[in-house]
Formats: sequence, C-alpha cells, structure tokens
Amino acid sequence: MPPHGVEHRAEQASLLAGILHDRSTDPRYAELINVVEESSLVVDRKSPEAVNVRELRREYDRERRLPRRLVEETARVTALASQIWSEARRDNDFMAFAPWLDRIFALAREEADAVGHNGTQYDALLDYYEPGMTSSQLSEVFASLQMNLCPLVDALRGARRSASAGLLSREFPLDRQRLFGESVAAALGFNLQSGRIDTAHHPFCTLIGPGDVRLGLRYYARNFARGILGLLHEVGHALYEQGLEPAHYGTPMGEAASLGMHESQARLWENLVGRSEGFWRHFYPQLQRSFHEVLHGVSPNRFRDALNRVNPGVIRVEADEVSYDLHIFIRVELERALLAGDLFAVDLPQAWSELYARHLGVTPKNDRMGCLQDGHWSEGLIGYFPTYSLGNVYGAQLFAAAERELGSLDDAFAAGDFDSLRRWLLEKVYRHGQRYTAATIVEAATGTAPDPSALIESLAGRYPTAL
Amino acid sequence: MPPHGVEHRAEQASLLAGILHDRSTDPRYAELINVVEESSLVVDRKSPEAVNVRELRREYDRERRLPRRLVEETARVTALASQIWSEARRDNDFMAFAPWLDRIFALAREEADAVGHNGTQYDALLDYYEPGMTSSQLSEVFASLQMNLCPLVDALRGARRSASAGLLSREFPLDRQRLFGESVAAALGFNLQSGRIDTAHHPFCTLIGPGDVRLGLRYYARNFARGILGLLHEVGHALYEQGLEPAHYGTPMGEAASLGMHESQARLWENLVGRSEGFWRHFYPQLQRSFHEVLHGVSPNRFRDALNRVNPGVIRVEADEVSYDLHIFIRVELERALLAGDLFAVDLPQAWSELYARHLGVTPKNDRMGCLQDGHWSEGLIGYFPTYSLGNVYGAQLFAAAERELGSLDDAFAAGDFDSLRRWLLEKVYRHGQRYTAATIVEAATGTAPDPSALIESLAGRYPTAL
Repeated sequence: MPPHGVEHRAEQASLLAGILHDRSTDPRYAELINVVEESSLVVDRKSPEAVNVRELRREYDRERRLPRRLVEETARVTALASQIWSEARRDNDFMAFAPWLDRIFALAREEADAVGHNGTQYDALLDYYEPGMTSSQLSEVFASLQMNLCPLVDALRGARRSASAGLLSREFPLDRQRLFGESVAAALGFNLQSGRIDTAHHPFCTLIGPGDVRLGLRYYARNFARGILGLLHEVGHALYEQGLEPAHYGTPMGEAASLGMHESQARLWENLVGRSEGFWRHFYPQLQRSFHEVLHGVSPNRFRDALNRVNPGVIRVEADEVSYDLHIFIRVELERALLAGDLFAVDLPQAWSELYARHLGVTPKNDRMGCLQDGHWSEGLIGYFPTYSLGNVYGAQLFAAAERELGSLDDAFAAGDFDSLRRWLLEKVYRHGQRYTAATIVEAATGTAPDPSALIESLAGRYPTAL
Repeated sequence: MPPHGVEHRAEQASLLAGILHDRSTDPRYAELINVVEESSLVVDRKSPEAVNVRELRREYDRERRLPRRLVEETARVTALASQIWSEARRDNDFMAFAPWLDRIFALAREEADAVGHNGTQYDALLDYYEPGMTSSQLSEVFASLQMNLCPLVDALRGARRSASAGLLSREFPLDRQRLFGESVAAALGFNLQSGRIDTAHHPFCTLIGPGDVRLGLRYYARNFARGILGLLHEVGHALYEQGLEPAHYGTPMGEAASLGMHESQARLWENLVGRSEGFWRHFYPQLQRSFHEVLHGVSPNRFRDALNRVNPGVIRVEADEVSYDLHIFIRVELERALLAGDLFAVDLPQAWSELYARHLGVTPKNDRMGCLQDGHWSEGLIGYFPTYSLGNVYGAQLFAAAERELGSLDDAFAAGDFDSLRRWLLEKVYRHGQRYTAATIVEAATGTAPDPSALIESLAGRYPTAL
C-alpha cells in the first residue's frame, strides 16, 4: 500500500479489532451461549448445535481473557510492522525491522499469558491455529521429520539435476498456462458455478460466502512448475471450502477443522496428486500438445523428473517437497526461541543462517533471502508455521488411508478419475466442519493418531536415493 | 461473481443496508446532531462543524423517511438484478432483465415518495447524487446541449476519419502503455506516496483512506485512445480525492461536493487537458520514442486528429467528446419516462433505438449494444446519469475561468506545467469538500451559475466544422 496510507490503516485495524473484541465478549453473548449449553440441544454432543456452542464457548473463553487494550495494540502494531517488514525486505535492511519483531513477540508473550497456559507460552498461541495441539507433540513430530528428512535431502541433493536442468525454465506462454491450469482445476472437481479463477500477485483461495470460492493464481513464463503446483495447492484449499456444508455457513460446523487440516488438503492435491505418475499420465499428452514448442520430444518421465527435482535452497516458497518441512522446522525452532526470550531479534539473522547451514546445507546470501523472506511474524502470526508441516503429516496419512480403501489412486488418476479421492475426502474430512479436531479426524479416517511416519514413508518411497 | 454466490450476497447486502439504516436513524444520533445545531459551533455557517452538521442533518432527514423494509428490499433486489443484468447482456436477452427493471423503478418511485418531493419524483432521486439540482434545471441544460450538439455531431460525422483511420488501432504494446501512462499520471500531479496504480478489468478510482487513493486502469493493445483517455479520466478523479483535506476525512468536509463535481474533474483532465495541443506538444515526443514502430513519421497533428476523431456510435463508454452528452441525454430522457410510468421496461428497446436514431443517427444492432450496455439501473442508480453531463458542464466552465485567470493553459501544458491548473482547482474546488454545493462552487469560481454555454463554446471552438 502507499506509504502515506499505512497510519490510517493501522488505526482502522485497531478500532475494528477493539469493536470485534467488545462484541465477542459481550455479557449478553455469554448468556446466550449459556442458554444453549444448558438446553437439550447439546445432549447429542456431535449435533451441529452442540459442536457450534462448544467452539463458540472456546473462542469466547479465550477472547474474554484478553484485555481490549492488548487486542487493539496488537492490531495496530502488526498493521504498521507489516509495512515496515515489506520495506525492510525490499531494502535488505533487517535492522529496520528488528525492533518491531521484538515488540511483536513481547505482545505475543503478553497474549499467551493472558490466555493462560501450563508453563509453555507457545501452547497458548499454537492452540489458536491448531486446536488441541501442544508444543511437546510438535517437538516429537519435528524431531522425527528432521532426523529422517535431513539425510534424505542430503542423499538426493541435485540427484536428478543434470537430466532435466532447465526444462521447466523454458518459456511456457502465460495465456496457455492459464487455460491448462483452469482445465486441471475443473477436472479435479473445482466447481465453477460456485467459484471463480482469476490471476493475482500472490496466489490465494478465499471463501466469499456459500457458493463463492475465489482462487487467485499466478503463472510464471519461465517457471512452469511454480505456477502449476501453486494452482494445485490453491485448488486443494478450494475443494475443502467447496466441500463444507453451505447450511452451516457462518458457524463452526461450516468451517475447516484447523489450519493444519486446511493445509493438508492443499499439500495433498499439490504433491500427492499433482506430482504423481498417474496425474501426468492423464494430463501430459494435453500439456505436450499445448506447449509443443518446449515439450516436443520430452518424455513424460523426463518432465516429471524436472517437476520433482530435489534441490534444497534458501527460499521456503520455492522449496521442493522433500526439503520443505526442514524450512518449517527452522522457523518453528526460531519462533519458539524468540517467544521464550532465548533469542532476540538482533541475533536472528545469524541464528537463521546457522540453522540453514546445519539442516539444509545452504546459506542465504543476505537477509532478504533469509530471515526477511516471510511476512508471517510481521503480521503477528506466531504458532502458525507448524500448521504447514502438520498439513503434510495429515495429508500423507489421509492419502495412504484413501489408497488402502480405494485401491491404486495412481491408476485412478491415470484414468482421469479424481472424483473417487475427492469424494472420500468429502466423506472423511470436509463435510464434518469442526465437528471433530484435526487429530480426531485423522485418527478416525486412518486408524492412527497424527504421526509423521506416513509422510516419511511416502517421501522415501517416491524419492528413492538409489536413483 | 459465480452464479451460486449471488443469493447469499443479496442477503448480506440487504442485512448490511438494514443495519446501516438503523444506525443512521438512531434517535441518539439525532440528539447529537441536535446538540451541535444548537451550539455556538455553528455560528459561522461556513465552519467545518457547521458544514458537517448541515450535511449530516440532510442525510439523517432523508434516511429517517425511508422504511427499513424498503432499504433492505432495494439492496436485495439490486444485488440480484445486477447479476441478472450481467447475464442478460452476455446472452443479449433483454426480456430476462425487463421484469427486474420494472421492479427497480417501482422501488425507486416508492423511495422518492417516502423521501418527499414537489410533485416530481425524479427530483428526490437526483438530489441524492447532485444536491440542490432539480429536474427543471436539468431540462434546460439538456435542451441546450441537445439543440447545439446534434447539429455539431452531424456536421463532424466522420470528418477526420480518412486522414487518421486505423492509426490508434495499431498495436501499442501493453507494458509500454502502462509505463507511459504512469509517467503521465505522475506528471499531472498524482502523488504515488499517497496512492497506487494497478491494472483492473474496469477502470476505477477509489479512496481507501487518507493517503491511499487507488487507481485501477486498463490498457488495450489495439485501442490506445481508450487506454490513455481512461487513465486521464481516473487521474482527474484521483486529483480531487488527493486534494481533499485529510484532517476532514470521514466527514462531509472531507468529501467531494457532488458526483457531478467529481465527474467534472475526470472529464476536465480527460478532455480539456488530455486532448489539448499543449498536452501533446509536451508528451508526444516521449510517446513517439516509446512506440516508434507505430508512430514513426506520424506528425503530432495527425496523432491528435486520430485521438479527437468524432464518430458517433452506439456505445457510451466509447463515445467521442462531442457526442458523449447525447448518450447521457437519451438515458436521462428514458429514466425519467420509466420513473414517471410513461414507459415500461418491455418498450425500452424500441424507445432506445428511436432516440439513438433521432439524436445520434445510429441504431444499435442488438440490445447488448443498446439498452443493456450500462449496469447503472440494475444497481438502482436512477438520477445518476445526469451527473456525467453536469460534470462536462462544470468542467468546461471551470477550465475557461482558470484560463482567464492563469493565461494560456495550452502554453503551460506545452511547457510541462500541469501544476498551475491543479493548484487553481485545489484552491477553488478540492479543498472545500462539501462546504458549498457544486453550483455554488461553480458560481464562485467562474462568476456564472452552472450553464452549458461554456461547454458548447469549448466544443465548437475545438471541433470547427469547417475542417
């Protein structure tokens, strides 16, 4: 936004946050929640009314513990800090942002203490994005991911590079990428009567209302992989949104179970569907016809090798599938340290570089490519990063379970059948809204509580180091 | 928007309209207005407080007379009708839209009667967009425009066609149009510290908040004129917004005097600046360098002839400067007849064609090119069209007055000086917000009440029929 517009936006954000806080902590609202809680509506604890009032109570109890001043201040500071971050990144000037980062973490500590926790402030924040998840569960998940993925990434480093280098950085005309992308989205089940696809600077999926899910996509003339994988990612989010019950719109029963579960759908459709052999057995002939100048004589296998190249780098949003969770691991380690006061903003660049060198074997050449690359912290999103990896974990478990029940999904994809998988997910995940927590949904659908082993097996199986 | 999203949007629009109505007619709000009205703050009737409370009182009195049911129903029906219109236009199916049009005009009659009027329902609606203007004043303005412009258009029809035909439908690469456009916007005084320029499907200018004015522009590879004139139009709106006092943001003192006055700035910068010899004496060398493939050997005069070609057609938004007000005249005639009940929707296509044949000498080949071309009525904007012509009228008067005071503006433009004009307008118009009505501002700045003769003289002078 233009520099002179920032101040007013911060005031507006702060005012709105305060008004929302007042409304959601209104004593009359609490009374109404109470009336439902004491009524026969909640006898069946899985009824929509019981689920809704359970979730509204949870939100009310959390909100009630926050002082209005803190809510307003956080909204104001993060509105200003987002702009500072964006300028700091542009100018590669971390020190301009550092004091704001410290301030945001101080506000987050205050918020965590106000909400309450069992000694771990991080839990109070995490719970906001991934209800029920705790710091110690997270530590286990990431320990396992780190232990298994670091060696895998090392072994794969640049393995398929020579064969396919440069193939996907040839010029793929944008208008044809757009046409191809939209036909893929429709084939996967994105309903264009209840949604739209447009182009945008940052890819997104957003729900405007029932019957109106918007996708903003971006294509790159010389980075075909980023465009199509980004599309599949957002389509995954959109299938979840379009799979929620319209009758429950505006209530917890009509909302996704958690951010991690939402991300699981994005990552599942992006990686487990969109990188698969079956998917490209179905779509590659069409792709090759559309881009015959660049794909003439390129075998489907060579194309897929290029798409699935593992080459750890310093930028999260450009990461391959295998190293992606290590980027998240690093952020989670750092935000926990920043929150605990074990790390100060001023020391972040060095800590960032050390972790990248240790776990990914790469070093950002500047802060813009390092600790300034993501805007999450500037927006006050602390405890949010884990949901990316939880999404990968849930997605791999769900995909494996679907395959056990439905038979080879690769064969289905090759035959152009994406509906079997989508219907399975609709039944097991989407239609439930927030009836169950993400962990409960995963366990009910797969027979196992959330656990990274399905993800690790999936990656090890699809990225054999012998190649 | 996607078809399935419309219903919910209509419900939301209706609910929001109802809530806004409740808040703006709250007895406590009336009491507060009253307190200020009876205080010493309004002793000086031109003080910001006096102006603000005068305008808030006007809005309150109007709103109070409307039943909430009508406000909600109008919001709901127009939200649905906009979508129906958009589909009807796409399918060239006027009959699908006709019943909605009758319904909207019925609601408008109800609104006019609720608000109150002296026998002319149209006045009650017009007053919403152009405070103080009446139907009978409007009739005089349009009678004069019609009487003078019809013969001028006839005499000019296709006059400069042969010399310049096709010149501006050559291919002007979009990226360079964008760069050229942005340099023009900056040169005219659009402040990029307090605004942004992006591309959009429909050109617009909107105020997000103080210090944040957004322009959405559109360029056409084979219609250079439409892109640059559209840009100048929106920049005109933007200069007005950026010229309002930020300290008065959110109050009538910080808002434009009227829609007609807003449009006057768009039309002044588009036509009286952007089509002038001086403007292109300054910018043509840069333009020619940027588009040397298409403009090599094209003289500035030939270029300007192509830009200023008069060739009446059936589409308002593509109209040349001379015939533009006749498009408006036709719409105003028709909406007055529709409101008065002298014309029913079902007879609109024929009435539309007859007026186009009579006043512009052209006949739309279908309804999509005829009475379905504009979305205004579907959105409930009745009494809005006149503000386009009032804008032309005010703009021509203001421009002539500025020139009398400042000396030749053409010479100023040729020297790259657009600031003298902008500062004059800032002083005479922008900074006043709603301190005065549009008519008062025009009279104070030009010495004459609003009157179309300056516009007619300007057009006759700049489009000599002897050529």
